[in-house]
Amino acid sequence: MAEKTWGGRFRGDTDDRVVAFTESISFDHRLYREDILASQAHGRMLAEIGLLVGDEAEQICAALDAIAAEIESGNFQFSSELEDIHTHIERALIERLGDLGRKLHTGRSRNDQVSTDVKLWARSALDQITTRLVDLQKSLMAAAERDREVILPGYTHMQRAQPVLAAHYFLAYIEKYQRDCDRLADCRRRVNVLPLGTAALAGTSIPIDRDSVAHQLGFESVAANSLDVSSDRDFVLEFVFDLAIVALHLGGWAEEWILWSTTEFGFLQIPDSFCTGSSIMPHKKNPDVLELIRGKTARVCADLQRLMMLVKGLPLAYNRDLQEDKEALFDAVDTVTVSLEAAAGLIRETRFRREAIAARLEDGFLDATTLMEFLVLEGVPLRTAHETVGKLVRHCEERRLRLAQLPVEVFETIKPGLGQRVYGVLGVYNVLAAFKSYGSTAPHEVERQLMKWKKILS
Amino acid sequence: MAEKTWGGRFRGDTDDRVVAFTESISFDHRLYREDILASQAHGRMLAEIGLLVGDEAEQICAALDAIAAEIESGNFQFSSELEDIHTHIERALIERLGDLGRKLHTGRSRNDQVSTDVKLWARSALDQITTRLVDLQKSLMAAAERDREVILPGYTHMQRAQPVLAAHYFLAYIEKYQRDCDRLADCRRRVNVLPLGTAALAGTSIPIDRDSVAHQLGFESVAANSLDVSSDRDFVLEFVFDLAIVALHLGGWAEEWILWSTTEFGFLQIPDSFCTGSSIMPHKKNPDVLELIRGKTARVCADLQRLMMLVKGLPLAYNRDLQEDKEALFDAVDTVTVSLEAAAGLIRETRFRREAIAARLEDGFLDATTLMEFLVLEGVPLRTAHETVGKLVRHCEERRLRLAQLPVEVFETIKPGLGQRVYGVLGVYNVLAAFKSYGSTAPHEVERQLMKWKKILS
Amino acid sequence: MAEKTWGGRFRGDTDDRVVAFTESISFDHRLYREDILASQAHGRMLAEIGLLVGDEAEQICAALDAIAAEIESGNFQFSSELEDIHTHIERALIERLGDLGRKLHTGRSRNDQVSTDVKLWARSALDQITTRLVDLQKSLMAAAERDREVILPGYTHMQRAQPVLAAHYFLAYIEKYQRDCDRLADCRRRVNVLPLGTAALAGTSIPIDRDSVAHQLGFESVAANSLDVSSDRDFVLEFVFDLAIVALHLGGWAEEWILWSTTEFGFLQIPDSFCTGSSIMPHKKNPDVLELIRGKTARVCADLQRLMMLVKGLPLAYNRDLQEDKEALFDAVDTVTVSLEAAAGLIRETRFRREAIAARLEDGFLDATTLMEFLVLEGVPLRTAHETVGKLVRHCEERRLRLAQLPVEVFETIKPGLGQRVYGVLGVYNVLAAFKSYGSTAPHEVERQLMKWKKILS
Amino acid sequence: MAEKTWGGRFRGDTDDRVVAFTESISFDHRLYREDILASQAHGRMLAEIGLLVGDEAEQICAALDAIAAEIESGNFQFSSELEDIHTHIERALIERLGDLGRKLHTGRSRNDQVSTDVKLWARSALDQITTRLVDLQKSLMAAAERDREVILPGYTHMQRAQPVLAAHYFLAYIEKYQRDCDRLADCRRRVNVLPLGTAALAGTSIPIDRDSVAHQLGFESVAANSLDVSSDRDFVLEFVFDLAIVALHLGGWAEEWILWSTTEFGFLQIPDSFCTGSSIMPHKKNPDVLELIRGKTARVCADLQRLMMLVKGLPLAYNRDLQEDKEALFDAVDTVTVSLEAAAGLIRETRFRREAIAARLEDGFLDATTLMEFLVLEGVPLRTAHETVGKLVRHCEERRLRLAQLPVEVFETIKPGLGQRVYGVLGVYNVLAAFKSYGSTAPHEVERQLMKWKKILS
Repeated sequence: MAEKTWGGRFRGDTDDRVVAFTESISFDHRLYREDILASQAHGRMLAEIGLLVGDEAEQICAALDAIAAEIESGNFQFSSELEDIHTHIERALIERLGDLGRKLHTGRSRNDQVSTDVKLWARSALDQITTRLVDLQKSLMAAAERDREVILPGYTHMQRAQPVLAAHYFLAYIEKYQRDCDRLADCRRRVNVLPLGTAALAGTSIPIDRDSVAHQLGFESVAANSLDVSSDRDFVLEFVFDLAIVALHLGGWAEEWILWSTTEFGFLQIPDSFCTGSSIMPHKKNPDVLELIRGKTARVCADLQRLMMLVKGLPLAYNRDLQEDKEALFDAVDTVTVSLEAAAGLIRETRFRREAIAARLEDGFLDATTLMEFLVLEGVPLRTAHETVGKLVRHCEERRLRLAQLPVEVFETIKPGLGQRVYGVLGVYNVLAAFKSYGSTAPHEVERQLMKWKKILS
Repeated sequence: MAEKTWGGRFRGDTDDRVVAFTESISFDHRLYREDILASQAHGRMLAEIGLLVGDEAEQICAALDAIAAEIESGNFQFSSELEDIHTHIERALIERLGDLGRKLHTGRSRNDQVSTDVKLWARSALDQITTRLVDLQKSLMAAAERDREVILPGYTHMQRAQPVLAAHYFLAYIEKYQRDCDRLADCRRRVNVLPLGTAALAGTSIPIDRDSVAHQLGFESVAANSLDVSSDRDFVLEFVFDLAIVALHLGGWAEEWILWSTTEFGFLQIPDSFCTGSSIMPHKKNPDVLELIRGKTARVCADLQRLMMLVKGLPLAYNRDLQEDKEALFDAVDTVTVSLEAAAGLIRETRFRREAIAARLEDGFLDATTLMEFLVLEGVPLRTAHETVGKLVRHCEERRLRLAQLPVEVFETIKPGLGQRVYGVLGVYNVLAAFKSYGSTAPHEVERQLMKWKKILS
Repeated sequence: MAEKTWGGRFRGDTDDRVVAFTESISFDHRLYREDILASQAHGRMLAEIGLLVGDEAEQICAALDAIAAEIESGNFQFSSELEDIHTHIERALIERLGDLGRKLHTGRSRNDQVSTDVKLWARSALDQITTRLVDLQKSLMAAAERDREVILPGYTHMQRAQPVLAAHYFLAYIEKYQRDCDRLADCRRRVNVLPLGTAALAGTSIPIDRDSVAHQLGFESVAANSLDVSSDRDFVLEFVFDLAIVALHLGGWAEEWILWSTTEFGFLQIPDSFCTGSSIMPHKKNPDVLELIRGKTARVCADLQRLMMLVKGLPLAYNRDLQEDKEALFDAVDTVTVSLEAAAGLIRETRFRREAIAARLEDGFLDATTLMEFLVLEGVPLRTAHETVGKLVRHCEERRLRLAQLPVEVFETIKPGLGQRVYGVLGVYNVLAAFKSYGSTAPHEVERQLMKWKKILS
Repeated sequence: MAEKTWGGRFRGDTDDRVVAFTESISFDHRLYREDILASQAHGRMLAEIGLLVGDEAEQICAALDAIAAEIESGNFQFSSELEDIHTHIERALIERLGDLGRKLHTGRSRNDQVSTDVKLWARSALDQITTRLVDLQKSLMAAAERDREVILPGYTHMQRAQPVLAAHYFLAYIEKYQRDCDRLADCRRRVNVLPLGTAALAGTSIPIDRDSVAHQLGFESVAANSLDVSSDRDFVLEFVFDLAIVALHLGGWAEEWILWSTTEFGFLQIPDSFCTGSSIMPHKKNPDVLELIRGKTARVCADLQRLMMLVKGLPLAYNRDLQEDKEALFDAVDTVTVSLEAAAGLIRETRFRREAIAARLEDGFLDATTLMEFLVLEGVPLRTAHETVGKLVRHCEERRLRLAQLPVEVFETIKPGLGQRVYGVLGVYNVLAAFKSYGSTAPHEVERQLMKWKKILS
């Protein structure tokens, strides 16, 4: 019992089942490095304000470094008796330094210590996720450049709609992941506010210097209200939400590529090294990586849902329920990390089956809209042009014709004088050349975007 | 590569990142016992239909037993290279038996094998959860008997409403957990349908005998459509939903007892062994177990949410996304298991602070409703009686009086002739005695329910 | 203020914003019929126990009928001042019957009244959903019979796996919806327990006869604990969960048919009357109904999530939060109802493009597994047969051959003596004929299932 | 059929059930103003590039103004035949202007039109929510100033921890809502990017000027990739997430005030006008507004969950599923709006029961931590001081004493020489005076924060 940080007022030991039920060391051991960094900063600050004297702070910092080394070497002894990583480290410190180790917790509580550790961890995870997002953008950029001249059917409602350049397609995802990076950057500002020094919930009568700690740990500012901080998990929710959006972006793309890997679409050649087989069906080659990326979306979104439900209806300030936040955060970060890596690898290794794509590219009337716009530019009111082209499509479909196979007389009945010019907007290649608007798949517009992103991503 | 169960059509090895990304051995090793049981039943059936001959089935069963023993002894070597528990066990079998081991997978796929293993595991987990629910009911029953004469304020809107016997209070939760048991029993019927033998998705040309396997493994029936089975995770969702309701019941009760443990309520004496303290505040004794039970509600509900999102939009039949089902199932079962145990223990150890409860029991006008009903039985229309008593309450509140402290003249103005009889329904003890309806907190009704449950739970 | 059912102890009016914020009449008006039925039963019971005398109960029942008629005629005046449907109806009763109307609320509270109304509504909704599920099963049955001889590629991982009969495919969904019906039937038992008579939370001192009310309203039993009942929303959660599973089944199928409607798959001919077009792309014909069915899955699952989060952490007994349960329930029922209707209609009207399906049916090595099983039956160990066929597939794929196009010598190298017999399991038609296991797509097994379901559904 | 915007290629009418199933006019009519503004901007741009000539744009703008007026007057005829608000308005335009009306849709699709309308609506909703958040902060500020000298017990684990100034308490929520405002401001930047002009999914061959439209409508930038835009709902998810956090903040506070309104806590006097009563219990006065605020948290979080599940697994670009986004967005905005208003009103009208709070303020050892810190400052190692004070608390609890009632000899045994000074940190008033750290409840620190926020909020 003496090993607990709070035994004084208690009579008898904690029930064994309670020890097992309440421990967090099985997952919060991941915070050991952050806990040590924050403790060292706290210790140096205690020296600055005279609560540690002589080389006491140096002794503490050195002992903490040694503990970190011991943990990293795998020799550190963990025990659920000691509840959490913070108690483990403090206990190890006391074992090494005796009464001096007992001084370190002066002016702080476990609550603000945990919050600080988690913020440090989250800040670092934010940066790593951002790095992986940028790497994914680079893999998309490489694909965009590699296949810039490939033309894909674009879809709405999963029905063929208009042709798009492959580069345009890849750039669409670069945009999405850029928004993710932006959201993470916004989140980082809110993460990077120091909680340490708010103590249990009301602050402390010890004359601590929170700015010093913030400065040492790279926090941009210091939390202004102790009650707020000791109940605050907004930053965990916001970070996990940002991760959920990343996961949803990945999941939508995974769905798309799973479709494109079917016999029926046949757009993609995924290398064997990114597929697995079946234990019973010897011919199967399955896009498991994509399926798991899609499936893991559910996991990250559920992590967020869990956090929201966790904090629902909790009054101020700290409640032990909040201990449940960390596994959700860790799981979301881990899941998105491996998914981002898998996605980037897959994009680098996968190739379009250009022939298969090209073979059916003229299917599905991808030129109908451009024909309609051509008629509009020739003076036919939009809604009339729409109706007319719709009827031509039905006519063609019944006869298994393409629009470009219709005789000129048909077009002349729409508007006399169209002549051969109309064929200039029919067929996928003509359609692509016709696009004009900013943000469109027009080759010159796509080129402009490629240039922009090349600069940004290098 | 040869170690995979599906290497034939593949060229080159699986990418290392893909191996790490797609493995499930890190969590599905928990299914080892079920996998072995199902494999033994499958092997015996193969012998029955002549596909294993001589003592081949016995050899297989014996080798599988040896593998189980090796796993349980901790000497079995796990590797993410071997994907999942099924591959591990088959590989170990082949190492021991050579070609004979290679025969076992005849007429089954990993899909129906996984599904069978998970159903066996879920069936057993269902039974264990039910056992723990009954144990919790017993702890509630013990509390109901121990404190049968204690009177508690009953609340609606967290405002004092009417008095209730402590036994009535505990019986309310026994009812809730009984519904949970009932739901689990319904779920068990749907779990207990054998998938094995549906093979990959269309069945098999091997003349297997599925009834034999079902009989050996205790399944009540055999799934009738292979396509359905290979995509079906309904039973996982239903089980986890049932667990979510259990968790919600636990969480509402935990909230209640957290309130009752406050300085302000002061109803409960939770033993030190079920509380923890604070690292900074030496006077704190916190109801952490209750808080964690409440917090873990979020976890189980999120497990369900994750499963629902996971299967959303998946076409027939098996998709690899479904591999993500197991961790959610395991987590929900584990979480509810430990929460049930912690709750039962806590209820057994916690005592009411009877004096503190009694001291303020007459606060809050717990007799107002019975007074109103008394007036109704005396012939005052309900709505009039309601209005009248409401005004009396306001009158008393402003003067800090109780209803029983009002002079008889006040009551006589409501309806002449009430006389002293009115005092027979005022005050908490009189109120309790006045209850009559079935299902109410009337002492004889509560007694009746205690008798009923005593019989059921013994 | 006098119009409220609870004005007595209150000074001054309710704040207007509060009136608007707390009202439920805007959605609970849907319960008017159930409220009237339950009130009539309650009134008759009050007469039975002598609290209503002479023809009072008849007067009340008649007046309630008249109010129902007024509501149905559209002439009833609703006002958020009167909070909810229960207050509206009681107020209208008092306007018609004066003091007699004021007697009806004797021995009940709004809490148990609301709970009873919602249970009556839910019971009826359960039955209607079940009817629609059966109708959907019938539409699937009709499709199964219509296209019983059509052969479809079966998929796992969205990759072609084995051939399945269309009837087998449709039967898979019949099985799923049957489980849904079973779950609803289980839920109905738990719904069909009478709450009325538990009063506010502790029962009542009025000598009511709850069995009489239960009998009148068709409840199978009477709730045994008043505290339990006044906090219980389990039945709402369970019903909405059951609906969520239905929605997920619909959503998976919708995804499948959206795929099958693409240019690339081209399996389905959805009639124009079930599609919509594009405002800009004149050629588009989109499977909007299927997309909305898929999208609405999210809605129903979120309704459940909302209910779980709503009750999280609520202590006994009634809390006003619970008012938020009804919109989620209504939305889930409404959404699943229209989705079921749309699905049944769509299945009835949609046709397979048999030629398109057949044209590519031999693509994707759908016979590889049966070839492997043939080898096993010829004595080749399973894993060896798997490996061998895997290599043949790769060989064929590189040369754009089918397995049936390989010369007999190739097969003889696997196992001498196979001869021409091997061709008897190659090709989709041979594969189908080879299936044997119960639950498989073997034509005779499918026939057996069709017979079974025909009997059940007629 | 001619009324549809896409009838040309279709044969026969849409099925009536399909019309009812797919319509969105029942909820998207709320976008009428945004649709008209965006159409007017689009029309003016078409004039700028010469596709509308003479006064055509003016005619269109005037007609659209007239349609807006008609809608606002309640005379506009809505019909589910016309699908959505966009079709209604275009149809009304064509009825007024004939062929000219048919020109307006040139160079845009419904997809980018809807997206633009929703962004305009969301931008405006963001600003309105922010205004209400600031109003809530002002109500908290007023309360902080009104009760600045009131001392409250601060809680962790719902157990009494340390005293806090009421002003400190209110400032904690001001901080939380400020983070919400910051998140909304970040979200606004991402909302405020023009989608219009990306057309269906690939852009357009019409030489439109998207910058002109952006400028007219106040968008800060123009979306750079048409495929991205036509699938993008990130901004809806982010906005609803931000609202969910607001709701969670409100819900935690509501829980707290519900507790504080109990008989047991008795901290608050909520005015009758913000409470409601019971239909059966005449004495009840329930904090319904707070309960509903708490309950509605579930609604907003479920709206987010719904949106996440909705977009899960959707490939590029637009899919009809996305139509389901609007109701979730509207519901989240509406719910948070009324909750914010109700909360601000309630905070303005509610008063502390100062006497009741003060009467028990010395309960619960709120000075224990400060005593421990005093010992630390006197040279006792932290962990030793903690243990010692813990034992004193247990000693006091068993004897029903306060720490300040212990004789000086007791303290002298801890550390000789403490003398009377120790009493200078005992008792709630001394404790408050002892706090020193930035962000603490120290009166001068709270004053500093009040000054800061007074400036910001005025």
